[in-house]
Amino acid sequence: MAEQVKTKMVNGIDMDVLQSTVNAIQEEPELGKCMFRVSNKWLGANHNCTTVTSFYGAKQEIDHKQSFEIHADEPAILAGQDQGANPVEHLLNALAACVTTSMVAHAAVRRIHIEELESELEGDIDLQGFLGLAKDVPKGYTDIRVKFKVKADTDNIERLKDLAQYSPVFNTLINGVNVDIQIEPK
Amino acid sequence: MAEQVKTKMVNGIDMDVLQSTVNAIQEEPELGKCMFRVSNKWLGANHNCTTVTSFYGAKQEIDHKQSFEIHADEPAILAGQDQGANPVEHLLNALAACVTTSMVAHAAVRRIHIEELESELEGDIDLQGFLGLAKDVPKGYTDIRVKFKVKADTDNIERLKDLAQYSPVFNTLINGVNVDIQIEPK
Repeated sequence: MAEQVKTKMVNGIDMDVLQSTVNAIQEEPELGKCMFRVSNKWLGANHNCTTVTSFYGAKQEIDHKQSFEIHADEPAILAGQDQGANPVEHLLNALAACVTTSMVAHAAVRRIHIEELESELEGDIDLQGFLGLAKDVPKGYTDIRVKFKVKADTDNIERLKDLAQYSPVFNTLINGVNVDIQIEPK
Repeated sequence: MAEQVKTKMVNGIDMDVLQSTVNAIQEEPELGKCMFRVSNKWLGANHNCTTVTSFYGAKQEIDHKQSFEIHADEPAILAGQDQGANPVEHLLNALAACVTTSMVAHAAVRRIHIEELESELEGDIDLQGFLGLAKDVPKGYTDIRVKFKVKADTDNIERLKDLAQYSPVFNTLINGVNVDIQIEPK
């Protein structure tokens, strides 16, 4: 069957690169340990900017090809100037990006070809929690819904849903994570 | 004491706007219910783009002043083209932005003046989990560390640490959240 012939590129991903990373970590698990980092600077009011420059992985410091700057602000109704998506929208972006990437990469490894992939996400927050107006109202998201539309062999659609479960951001969100906050004078 | 005179702007935030939002939600809790949304489109390989346009809050649909586009990709070692921060870096951005904004806004309400605020975040992920190479290794972040440096009255630094706890993204991450994923053919 022609579609099962192994090609170098699947879903736009170079399978040689992906497979060599997988093989290397399988042989030497220490290579899989990563530390991702960002730095953030407050720019006044609700506006702040994150810079992403480098990370640790494969037992070495690795620079991105370029630094990335990501702005966050709040809309006028939340007393901001609307100079960027707000932090909880950025969280939905992280989830959308991660589930998409995870699905595409895991599909590629299984030779499932994806032609198009889009998603719509929405999440519920009651601001009474954040504002400290009601102690019994959670401060964070209570529910997030992700709806994908995919153009692919229909036989594979349920498999793709399973592959979404590999997403690191999805797993961080459903399981929770330890977050330690320290603050010191500048 | 001069510093306790109530001024309209604290930490760059218009206190009249912030206080009127707080008062309105306190009087009519339904106004606090928000639904934030993003849409995402896969652009091939590990590259995808999120668009943020509008949200629901204060019992109405509200458009941002402009749409925001946020790109995600992976570095070369993870088989990407490095055209944006990767999804787990975007998650750290969401956390950095949210704790910063929460701290600044809650400080403003308490008339705690902040002159400068910066943070460094790092998070640990072992790729063996994401790659499905070891079932006992978590797929998401296991630990995230946030280090703030703040220029403010030193008496207030411990209070600022407490105010960080109001952050919606922080609370979502430490408590976990329900995430429902649906997928349908396009």
